[in-house]
Amino acid sequence: MTNQQCSESRIAGCSFSVHPMSDNFIEVITHALKSVDKSKVWMETDDVTTTIRGKLVHVFDVTKSIFIHAAKTGEHVAFQATYSLGCPGDSAGDVYMAEDDIPANNTQIKDIKQPVAAKFSLYPLGGGNYMDVIMKQIEAMRKHVDVSHAHYSTRLDGESIKVLNGLEQVFNATVDGGSNHTVMTVSMSANSPSHKGANEHE
Amino acid sequence: MTNQQCSESRIAGCSFSVHPMSDNFIEVITHALKSVDKSKVWMETDDVTTTIRGKLVHVFDVTKSIFIHAAKTGEHVAFQATYSLGCPGDSAGDVYMAEDDIPANNTQIKDIKQPVAAKFSLYPLGGGNYMDVIMKQIEAMRKHVDVSHAHYSTRLDGESIKVLNGLEQVFNATVDGGSNHTVMTVSMSANSPSHKGANEHE
Repeated sequence: MTNQQCSESRIAGCSFSVHPMSDNFIEVITHALKSVDKSKVWMETDDVTTTIRGKLVHVFDVTKSIFIHAAKTGEHVAFQATYSLGCPGDSAGDVYMAEDDIPANNTQIKDIKQPVAAKFSLYPLGGGNYMDVIMKQIEAMRKHVDVSHAHYSTRLDGESIKVLNGLEQVFNATVDGGSNHTVMTVSMSANSPSHKGANEHE
Repeated sequence: MTNQQCSESRIAGCSFSVHPMSDNFIEVITHALKSVDKSKVWMETDDVTTTIRGKLVHVFDVTKSIFIHAAKTGEHVAFQATYSLGCPGDSAGDVYMAEDDIPANNTQIKDIKQPVAAKFSLYPLGGGNYMDVIMKQIEAMRKHVDVSHAHYSTRLDGESIKVLNGLEQVFNATVDGGSNHTVMTVSMSANSPSHKGANEHE
């Protein structure tokens, strides 16, 4: 498969889960899903994760929106996501690549205030200079939110929409930089009862 | 840095979180943490994830044990983990590399019955033949549990201890196969009220 063929089928995807730490977890998830326009992505949910596929702009738009709607219920909500774009894999949802580039939920969520703590890791696969790509993108995040070192990841603190927009830009820049198979993992927590900061155990 | 130097400092690590979907989430997590012998690993918890570092055998032993103790409370528990072993990064917890190789919690958890649904993805970084490594390790999992295709990952169904032991073997085999920087992500769910199987949305 040539690079040209790859770039023609560059459907993006995200496998994610939203975990409200509450007896009302089903209601919180159902509310978030109902609040979001998912018409521009392919979506499938099972008992472990939800998968979304489509144009990168819509994959980010929908996942951002689901997290923000879940978090603004005020419940302690954890969000875990793996964003992926690259050659290998399946073709479910390829039809959604014909959608336009206008994010369906952006105007609804862009002004919602919701502080968040997140950690992300970027994995550009298949190339030897991946650490340089990662370090450059960590620096780029400083324009958006507070950035600090964490183990196996980079910590981000700030408004959730800024964190998520920053992550989208980092992912886009890695793809535009020539990575043929890019993976990014994100862990995010809103309304946590824990104080910010590390707490070392023996 | 030569490969020899890499192999001398091959501390493993895991950044993970346990999410009980319950108002009792703090009690479930506290119970699980108290039930586990963590003396052979370095551990740090903040408001997003918990990080464990040490010998690979103990990193898996402790994370397995925390998940299984949380799941056996009967609550719907989600577990997300990124296991990592490789050169780049920090040295916190290096002192724990002097521990012996006897997993401290194995005898306590090895007979606990707890069905689980999981998805895992393996990322051997920095090399071009990573897809071959991944496909070989997915085949290897079939010895342990039910294996099926999922989007951006491989689905595993079976007893949690078999799933987790299988994941440990897959990770070990990837490292032993020469991967200098190996990352594996795992999403796992126990006691989910959802029926097994996919549920496609419009």
